[in-house]
Amino acid sequence: MFGARCLLRALRSCTSAPCPRHKPSARLSVRDALGARSTNGERVKVQGWIRSVRSQKEVLFLHVNDGSSLESLQVVADSSFDSRELAFGSSVEVQGQLVKSPSKKQNVELKAEKIEIVGNCDAKAFPLKYKERHPLEYLRQYPHLRCRTNALGSILRIRSEATAAIHSFFKDSGFVHIHTPIITSNDCEGAGELFQVEPSSKIKVPEENFFNVPAFLTVSGQLHLEVMSGAFTQVFTFGPTFRAENSQSRRHLAEFYMVEAEISFVESLQDLMQVMEGLFKTATMMVLSNCTEDVELCHKFIAPGQKDRLEHMLKNNFLIISYTEAVEILKQASQNFTFTPEVAAVDLLVPGVGELFGGSLREERYHFLEQQLARSGLTEAYQWYLDLRRFGSVPHGGFGMGFERYLQCILGIDNIKDVIPFPRFTHSCVL
Amino acid sequence: MFGARCLLRALRSCTSAPCPRHKPSARLSVRDALGARSTNGERVKVQGWIRSVRSQKEVLFLHVNDGSSLESLQVVADSSFDSRELAFGSSVEVQGQLVKSPSKKQNVELKAEKIEIVGNCDAKAFPLKYKERHPLEYLRQYPHLRCRTNALGSILRIRSEATAAIHSFFKDSGFVHIHTPIITSNDCEGAGELFQVEPSSKIKVPEENFFNVPAFLTVSGQLHLEVMSGAFTQVFTFGPTFRAENSQSRRHLAEFYMVEAEISFVESLQDLMQVMEGLFKTATMMVLSNCTEDVELCHKFIAPGQKDRLEHMLKNNFLIISYTEAVEILKQASQNFTFTPEVAAVDLLVPGVGELFGGSLREERYHFLEQQLARSGLTEAYQWYLDLRRFGSVPHGGFGMGFERYLQCILGIDNIKDVIPFPRFTHSCVL
Repeated sequence: MFGARCLLRALRSCTSAPCPRHKPSARLSVRDALGARSTNGERVKVQGWIRSVRSQKEVLFLHVNDGSSLESLQVVADSSFDSRELAFGSSVEVQGQLVKSPSKKQNVELKAEKIEIVGNCDAKAFPLKYKERHPLEYLRQYPHLRCRTNALGSILRIRSEATAAIHSFFKDSGFVHIHTPIITSNDCEGAGELFQVEPSSKIKVPEENFFNVPAFLTVSGQLHLEVMSGAFTQVFTFGPTFRAENSQSRRHLAEFYMVEAEISFVESLQDLMQVMEGLFKTATMMVLSNCTEDVELCHKFIAPGQKDRLEHMLKNNFLIISYTEAVEILKQASQNFTFTPEVAAVDLLVPGVGELFGGSLREERYHFLEQQLARSGLTEAYQWYLDLRRFGSVPHGGFGMGFERYLQCILGIDNIKDVIPFPRFTHSCVL
Repeated sequence: MFGARCLLRALRSCTSAPCPRHKPSARLSVRDALGARSTNGERVKVQGWIRSVRSQKEVLFLHVNDGSSLESLQVVADSSFDSRELAFGSSVEVQGQLVKSPSKKQNVELKAEKIEIVGNCDAKAFPLKYKERHPLEYLRQYPHLRCRTNALGSILRIRSEATAAIHSFFKDSGFVHIHTPIITSNDCEGAGELFQVEPSSKIKVPEENFFNVPAFLTVSGQLHLEVMSGAFTQVFTFGPTFRAENSQSRRHLAEFYMVEAEISFVESLQDLMQVMEGLFKTATMMVLSNCTEDVELCHKFIAPGQKDRLEHMLKNNFLIISYTEAVEILKQASQNFTFTPEVAAVDLLVPGVGELFGGSLREERYHFLEQQLARSGLTEAYQWYLDLRRFGSVPHGGFGMGFERYLQCILGIDNIKDVIPFPRFTHSCVL
């Protein structure tokens, strides 16, 4: 930091130094080019990666994609531009005129006047092959390249949009967003599956904890949200949570994202269920309307039938059944269960994914909590939690939604490793 | 999960079960009550915590706050409602008529017809005292209660708004949001300050790494964003980053939030600087317009003078000086520097905080990178990084902005521990 404040003081006494500004370029994203309303032959510059090359007698067709949309922009060039380097996977900069396309396949196309190869791509070494639809399992081997395929491109654009939709649902509903901590000294929850955090062995002083106490990666922001719900009434968090579970299942990760909400002055589970249903439906409708093509790709090529199932969920009220009813249904089911059926009243179960939401009203009776903590010898460590019930306590409750499971649910993606950019699980932490 | 899929199959065959819906209540947030346009004496219910009590001969005035805004709602009640339990910090539910206030201090007030004490607050034990403006240092001792003060309430609402503003700036600019991983096997950057992650000692199998390789908490999402910029052109991440630094400074935390962006096809540092300036100004303008009162509180009581400094920054173009110019200025400064001055071309320095942004163009020459990695014996571990330059490489660059420092900068908050809900630093990981 080398005396930055001194530098700033010095700077402020400078007289008007010349201030070079960058002029706006004629650069256009593929998405904007495709969405151009009028095509009066304006000259534009488009940059991206070649997705296909088709060479005819006198004309060369390229499809250029820059990740701003699933659809690529068709570039039409004189065959004199043809070159071995204009290959699948290469990066290019194309300048030319944006014109109305004579084909029905697209509205506009780019009539190339200049094509510059920015970076070559060795087709033999490149693990993604031209015109092949690689299975998702195959792509998992290449976490640094799989985002360049249609499937992962669509899934990750949807993930980005869903993130924004969830933030916007809570903001519009008056919730305050809280960054609950990742490193925590709370260890009472799920103690068997915690990751512990210590300074790297290279610098560790063995007899001393960095934080003075053992520190762990969070398994839930619930307790911290409970703190905040005592001030802001409605709060939410959306961040990473961790489980040191030895699981290779298609629904579990060691690092995954949770959307958690906590609400004060709730009167019943109905209050929570209303927010859960609102969150699911509002966010999903936003994703469907903002990522139509991307969602269609998933529903068409990855999970046929998912579209109908999703529409059914969105159109109908969520089915609410009591604990007693659920147990009755389970008893009548023809299958045997490994575990004794026990259904929490505010779990939300969805087809294909299972438990998507879990929520509950929190214990607010001071003396009951005090006894429970005393029994576990945790009174001192959790005095702060008791304090919340001691000073202006309110009935409150909340829920958590697994974000990756949410994406699996709306898109019909079978394996959770395909809806997160860099999956972490037992025996695997690549990149 | 106990056979959730079976349950679902069973559920789907249910005939129309009764589906209880919760009726919308007349509940109003304090913010909405204060913003009510017309006050035709409608009956409403407001819930929150008592911030002040004033008892006159025949009338009782309460101020009730629910965290939805800095301002509290004035409740006017008959003195028959007076009770020892209606005290500072208690939680209450008030029902009554929303009416125009005769006082100029507020537009509306709530004429109480029913007041219910939800939770008492023992004034003697409660660390927050009525009518006292506690110093921020004092409040740091009570991370579970400090959010109930005006100061922390405002700061955390602003933090929530700033988070939304940053997401919205990038979304509107066409960036794709990426959740870069928290746990990573990359250890080449800042190796001396890494936190290592291992399953808690209770479950650890000593001779084996959970992930097969040593795993660390991320210090930056840059490398992962570089992967994604090869598909989406413009990407950003906004998440926690970590340093196992033994620092007690007012500008450092062990766990803090970073906003990072990576952009492909950049032509010069100017491209990056333009986005940096746009991000700072757009997000700040949004915060100022959406959190006017909260920002005013900080500028009035915590950092007088900060308002003018901020307005100056927003109105003027950021001053851009070359490395050579900066060194010249430093030479002329009257103070001695602990370190030799060395100014990176795209660091953004701001008054009071110092380095707010750091950015650079990335090395894209394959053979140069290959040599560097070979020299460090890292070729195999970073083959994936070389791959990015091997298959359709593009010039790219990016930057990172420390989110807590950003908040310190716009609000004039001296200590970084006061702009994050639960600060983590050497010797401290409370809650």
